[in-house]
Amino acid sequence: MGSFIGHALPGSFFYFMGLWWSTKYILKYDCKKYKRSCYFNSKSSFYRLELLEGIIIISMALIGITAEQFFPGGPYLTLYDYKEGHWKQLKMWHHCTMYFFFGLVGVTNILCHIYRSLPGSLPKLMLSNAFFVEALIFHNHTHGQDMLDIYVHQLLLLVILVTGVLIFIDFMRSNIIFALLHTSFLLFQGSWFWQIGFVLYPLNGGPAWESTDHNNMMFLTICFCWHYAVSLTVIGLNFAFVTWLVKSKLKRFCPTEVELLKNTEQEQESEEEM
Amino acid sequence: MGSFIGHALPGSFFYFMGLWWSTKYILKYDCKKYKRSCYFNSKSSFYRLELLEGIIIISMALIGITAEQFFPGGPYLTLYDYKEGHWKQLKMWHHCTMYFFFGLVGVTNILCHIYRSLPGSLPKLMLSNAFFVEALIFHNHTHGQDMLDIYVHQLLLLVILVTGVLIFIDFMRSNIIFALLHTSFLLFQGSWFWQIGFVLYPLNGGPAWESTDHNNMMFLTICFCWHYAVSLTVIGLNFAFVTWLVKSKLKRFCPTEVELLKNTEQEQESEEEM
Amino acid sequence: MGSFIGHALPGSFFYFMGLWWSTKYILKYDCKKYKRSCYFNSKSSFYRLELLEGIIIISMALIGITAEQFFPGGPYLTLYDYKEGHWKQLKMWHHCTMYFFFGLVGVTNILCHIYRSLPGSLPKLMLSNAFFVEALIFHNHTHGQDMLDIYVHQLLLLVILVTGVLIFIDFMRSNIIFALLHTSFLLFQGSWFWQIGFVLYPLNGGPAWESTDHNNMMFLTICFCWHYAVSLTVIGLNFAFVTWLVKSKLKRFCPTEVELLKNTEQEQESEEEM
Amino acid sequence: MGSFIGHALPGSFFYFMGLWWSTKYILKYDCKKYKRSCYFNSKSSFYRLELLEGIIIISMALIGITAEQFFPGGPYLTLYDYKEGHWKQLKMWHHCTMYFFFGLVGVTNILCHIYRSLPGSLPKLMLSNAFFVEALIFHNHTHGQDMLDIYVHQLLLLVILVTGVLIFIDFMRSNIIFALLHTSFLLFQGSWFWQIGFVLYPLNGGPAWESTDHNNMMFLTICFCWHYAVSLTVIGLNFAFVTWLVKSKLKRFCPTEVELLKNTEQEQESEEEM
Repeated sequence: MGSFIGHALPGSFFYFMGLWWSTKYILKYDCKKYKRSCYFNSKSSFYRLELLEGIIIISMALIGITAEQFFPGGPYLTLYDYKEGHWKQLKMWHHCTMYFFFGLVGVTNILCHIYRSLPGSLPKLMLSNAFFVEALIFHNHTHGQDMLDIYVHQLLLLVILVTGVLIFIDFMRSNIIFALLHTSFLLFQGSWFWQIGFVLYPLNGGPAWESTDHNNMMFLTICFCWHYAVSLTVIGLNFAFVTWLVKSKLKRFCPTEVELLKNTEQEQESEEEM
Repeated sequence: MGSFIGHALPGSFFYFMGLWWSTKYILKYDCKKYKRSCYFNSKSSFYRLELLEGIIIISMALIGITAEQFFPGGPYLTLYDYKEGHWKQLKMWHHCTMYFFFGLVGVTNILCHIYRSLPGSLPKLMLSNAFFVEALIFHNHTHGQDMLDIYVHQLLLLVILVTGVLIFIDFMRSNIIFALLHTSFLLFQGSWFWQIGFVLYPLNGGPAWESTDHNNMMFLTICFCWHYAVSLTVIGLNFAFVTWLVKSKLKRFCPTEVELLKNTEQEQESEEEM
Repeated sequence: MGSFIGHALPGSFFYFMGLWWSTKYILKYDCKKYKRSCYFNSKSSFYRLELLEGIIIISMALIGITAEQFFPGGPYLTLYDYKEGHWKQLKMWHHCTMYFFFGLVGVTNILCHIYRSLPGSLPKLMLSNAFFVEALIFHNHTHGQDMLDIYVHQLLLLVILVTGVLIFIDFMRSNIIFALLHTSFLLFQGSWFWQIGFVLYPLNGGPAWESTDHNNMMFLTICFCWHYAVSLTVIGLNFAFVTWLVKSKLKRFCPTEVELLKNTEQEQESEEEM
Repeated sequence: MGSFIGHALPGSFFYFMGLWWSTKYILKYDCKKYKRSCYFNSKSSFYRLELLEGIIIISMALIGITAEQFFPGGPYLTLYDYKEGHWKQLKMWHHCTMYFFFGLVGVTNILCHIYRSLPGSLPKLMLSNAFFVEALIFHNHTHGQDMLDIYVHQLLLLVILVTGVLIFIDFMRSNIIFALLHTSFLLFQGSWFWQIGFVLYPLNGGPAWESTDHNNMMFLTICFCWHYAVSLTVIGLNFAFVTWLVKSKLKRFCPTEVELLKNTEQEQESEEEM
């Protein structure tokens, strides 16, 4: 929807999923690393989480679709107004299509949970797919709007495309660094959605930023980079926090193993020193 | 040809080949998976299929070329009208060139069948080649047409390019997921060809859609995404159906093996649970 | 140089190198394949060939540079005309820079021959480099020319870029298929250079093709594809011919080995049949 | 800053880091190669160097930021002039943002030094990141400037993007050739920054080069290629020099090992000859 809430809602969804996935990836990474020392009941619990994840993603998509369709001024599920002979609220249908493809990710998640013979990386492929579809729709979405509006959506398009590519790379060669990188882009996209909301529909009810002032565009360029820096920092802090948590928990439950681990690490280091 | 049939014909070809290849890849995948348990006489039959495939592809290409050349208004194999001093029906020649490159795929298929020392992935390379050539020709094909016509062909161009890239990736690292992904893009391209036919040459004989109405373009953007969603779903259902078929056939002919297989799977799962 | 010979010269160079390299790659591939059966004195002779190759490439580059500089109307090695205060014949300098970068490939070839500790794939990297530099220069080369001229050079640019990318891929993962693919693009580029010469500077001394006629561009698009088809076919025939030659030579000198080889192949096939 | 010094400063930084990193990579490569023969105390000293590197990079970034902010005419850390109601010196803030992202590389370097469990390739990812951010900012930086200015910055953009991509490839598959290639692009970027300074702000205080003369652009195109050729040559000479140094040092300290090494090399060669 062309309103503040219409940008804040997907922004929050992306931010939440970014935080959640980064936490999951870090946990998985840590559990794998300390696997030999202490046995979390990890694999099966991650498995169950996948089901929960699928349900959450589908709910988000449904919330988004419902909001787009039934908010005052929405198309109420009709596509063509036969009386007046024109399409009805196609922008809302654009948004719904995007939500629908994200919903497909959730469906794949659940299918992969039920049929374990399906490859586990399928949801990642669908996710990267959903971003490419989002990018395509956004690319054909800003017709006839003014310069500033187009510019912030172009920047958004850039984030979306890079996210899609990164998830695709992560799908091809699973790797903690790529995983964290693409989650940081999810945070980035989320916070940029909020920024677009603030720029085009200021909360104080005032008018949108001056659209023809080139300085505004120049500021938004660096603002965009700062959003990225913040996203990277948040992911870094999350990594530090979760790893510290896992280590401290490990220390409490199986202290002897941690000792062993430390010794091994020190030995490796001293070997490297030589 | 600039007519409904000229879009429906290649559309049907792509749809048919997409369905056929997806079925083949899924069969191959399933046979490989259950290889240890029950011995289909698979490898040599796949080999013979390759020959049949080559012949079918070449026939399709020949049908296409014949139709383009000898339909009323076609160039009848002459390239230049020396009398009047201008090129003859270059659009038809464009289409013929595309068909010709797809014909080359069939030729490679047959060559690979005859000379087994040739690498088996060569037809895939030629196929991705054919799509890139198709993309190049389509890129220089829409000169002087109106907005809507150009737009639907741009979307078509996008599908063609992505198909080419995906087949190239599949050629480099053979993988069931990439294989199914690119066949889903074949279906996508096929159904989009039909859609173009409906939009530009409506079956009821009425005029083409209003070319200057931007809402039509906005609708076609989401329509494009829905075509993609349908293609993905068709491939998914095909996967489910073929796998179920293979399993049930396996059960009838070698039931003990299936039992063994099941036990192994359950054991693996219970190990994972731990 | 803006003349027929200025396009025919590099065209011939590329065509010759394409033929030569394809032959080399096929020979290498065949020798590797039949290595176990009969021992060509191959590796060291390939090594010596590399030196010869380097010298040939450098000579070609020098011929090109000399022709560009000292043909009537060339800049005679001066870059700036201080008297009249303008640059001298920058187009020729552009061509010289291209030739220079191809010369660097030859230098790398010789360096790799002398210092065997250098990685053997370095010349390939330099070659892909040279194509990218050529692409960059061609991209900024067609200022102020008319439509048809720009179009044929854009198509040329496409070939150059694809060649560069393919050689880069071949550099990263050495593979007979990629090697033959990029040599076929060398042939393609060579014959397209000749085609440009024919289009812009017809041999009968007549005027260039009508530049504003869009049909000419449409014809050149398909002509471009046919050049590609011919290049692929030439490489295919070369492969068939060289492989047949190697096999027949093998048969004469070590017939028993060939028999053994055949048996092994037949056994493999019959195993596959099962 | 829009001045000669504002281009010479980052240019020098890039040139220095390019030289330094190339030397480091070559040293690492040589040490690895001769590891078996003579034991440098290498790994731990490289480790300590990383800390120093981080500090140097951060200092460079801080120098750059300080210069941008506090030079006469800089924004003095204020972003918005509330009195007059406009943004303050956004160009300087653009530059600061670029420096900041390079500073992040230094921070990552130090973090990787302290927490050895972090993957060692993280700084490389951050470096490629910094280049992509630099590219994005430069892309939106040349608004309203004249043709020549835009052109030299477009060429700069090309170098920056290629550098980012090469470092990303080097991050994915660590390799001496890619490492040297991307350092040569650092030199390239450094010397091109100097060239931009000379073109737009000539040292003799004269006016910038004639902006509307297309010949200037044509000259800068080939000049750009020559810069690249020089960068490649510098890296090549550096490689030759460092390798010669390592070998001669090795000869002095452990001559017997070198003899052994030579014999092994000769044996390998003679084997290859056969």
